[in-house]
Amino acid sequence: MKNIDDFQLIVDEEIKRQHRNLEPKELYEPIWYTLSNGGKRLRPVLVLMGCQLFSDRIEEAVLPAIGIEMFHNFTLLHDDIMDKAFLRRNRPTVHIKWDVNRAILSGDALAIQSNIFISSCSREVLPEVLNVFLTTALQVCEGQQYDLNFEIKSMVSVDEYMNMIRLKTAVLLAGSLQIGAIIGGAGKDWAQRVYDLGCELGMAFQLQDDLLDTFGDEDVFGKSIGGDILSDKKTFLLIKAYEQASPEQAKVLDDCYSGKCTDPDQKVKEVRKIFMDLGIDQMTRKKVREYLYSALAILEELPVEKERKTELENFTRSLMDRVR
Amino acid sequence: MKNIDDFQLIVDEEIKRQHRNLEPKELYEPIWYTLSNGGKRLRPVLVLMGCQLFSDRIEEAVLPAIGIEMFHNFTLLHDDIMDKAFLRRNRPTVHIKWDVNRAILSGDALAIQSNIFISSCSREVLPEVLNVFLTTALQVCEGQQYDLNFEIKSMVSVDEYMNMIRLKTAVLLAGSLQIGAIIGGAGKDWAQRVYDLGCELGMAFQLQDDLLDTFGDEDVFGKSIGGDILSDKKTFLLIKAYEQASPEQAKVLDDCYSGKCTDPDQKVKEVRKIFMDLGIDQMTRKKVREYLYSALAILEELPVEKERKTELENFTRSLMDRVR
Repeated sequence: MKNIDDFQLIVDEEIKRQHRNLEPKELYEPIWYTLSNGGKRLRPVLVLMGCQLFSDRIEEAVLPAIGIEMFHNFTLLHDDIMDKAFLRRNRPTVHIKWDVNRAILSGDALAIQSNIFISSCSREVLPEVLNVFLTTALQVCEGQQYDLNFEIKSMVSVDEYMNMIRLKTAVLLAGSLQIGAIIGGAGKDWAQRVYDLGCELGMAFQLQDDLLDTFGDEDVFGKSIGGDILSDKKTFLLIKAYEQASPEQAKVLDDCYSGKCTDPDQKVKEVRKIFMDLGIDQMTRKKVREYLYSALAILEELPVEKERKTELENFTRSLMDRVR
Repeated sequence: MKNIDDFQLIVDEEIKRQHRNLEPKELYEPIWYTLSNGGKRLRPVLVLMGCQLFSDRIEEAVLPAIGIEMFHNFTLLHDDIMDKAFLRRNRPTVHIKWDVNRAILSGDALAIQSNIFISSCSREVLPEVLNVFLTTALQVCEGQQYDLNFEIKSMVSVDEYMNMIRLKTAVLLAGSLQIGAIIGGAGKDWAQRVYDLGCELGMAFQLQDDLLDTFGDEDVFGKSIGGDILSDKKTFLLIKAYEQASPEQAKVLDDCYSGKCTDPDQKVKEVRKIFMDLGIDQMTRKKVREYLYSALAILEELPVEKERKTELENFTRSLMDRVR
């Protein structure tokens, strides 16, 4: 049995091995720049973990796993244009390092390459794998659109927010796990349960992300804390806080989020204080745990040897105390 | 046997039939706006013609044909952002009617939908169809990148230009025809010959486009004449003209293309005169005919009943005197 570190290594090595100096370089340079970003490779690792749940023939899932990582990177590349983000993992984003046209077109090419890699699975499972991948891929776009819509909406409900992160983040983690399971030989019904498991994981992962953005340790988390607050992002924390705030607290939040508070440190401090006074951080941690326990319960159900489940169980438990 | 008009009708009806009012509407509205543009549906019609070369079961090719049309429209949507185009078929482009973010994201979603439709072909031919489609799709991106590169290059050779239009335009026409042929049951080798035929058609089509942009009849062609000249586009006509110009003619061209000539009508008139003095229009027409005869020669080779070839032959011959 392979563990997460093995999987990460396999993914990183394969991405390097697949690198070619293709022409025109204006198109392919930004793709390699994006793929060599030193990310956690979470999604392709989930593909391999999903496969190992049902089979030892991990190698059959490696190229589709790279395809999923390519797709994820394509969405980051285009999202960074839409969000006008300057930095990603401490490096200039593609549309800043080159220009918007290069970012649009190399993103398009990367999306096509992702389909090429996904399609390299065996003929027998290709229609099922593609069905999961393409359904998921479209949902990711829907999630990004809802996220953009939220920017100009005055308020967003918890349900709307949960639906948005399900689409934007959770389904791709779920689809990754399911694609691995399908390639590993899981039947239709169990592959679907693996998808459900992945959805719970994905929801936990995104809520954790919201939490770390506001309450994480800057040096460990790897990005500056309070970014969501400073960019007025409507996160789970803020939506819940508004739901439960006293009139006085709501007034402070209104002031903070209407541009009245011009000192960024002050703004982060005040919003964090209200979150803590209302116990939003604890409530979010509890929600994260609920999702993770639900994932573990599905894992328990799966009709495979216990040792096949070990890595996914370890990974799920590690998310409970995730700090980066 | 069905003819081109039948095929166009089938495609238009199916696109309408597939229309859904999906959510979020911000994502899906621009897609429907783009797909209902009243275009010629050339690529999906080629899919159906490719299928009819080998089979009567056209219905199996209809959804993949729509997928090809979706892919083509996705490239137009993103190209219009990159080219800063305001109008397409006399309507505002998506990034003008809405905004750049909507155009990027709805384009991405349309690209994914195109893959969903392509993948709806039968399991038996899916790997082959996807292979042709994705290889072609990536080449279209390469072609667009070369086209963008040419804008800032001082000069472009005929070979470079031919390679660019092969990638940007010809391979998708060729791939469309080949995908139809594969679905129709053509073996690997004949499907490849159908692709070659499509490439010749595609080259002819693009050179004809260059010609019509400069020498067409505005009312018939449907866009204003001289657009390529006014936007300093390095077309086959211009590249050939520079190759053959006398020093005096080259001087006039240099002046026209360095912004010295500020009157647009004057610029178009002077450049057109040099093209005609050098016989570039006749030479381009000759080149178009060569490609089309070469396409007809391949059509002749194909081991199918003569009546199966009739529509593609008619279509090819109609391109000889194409005016729009």
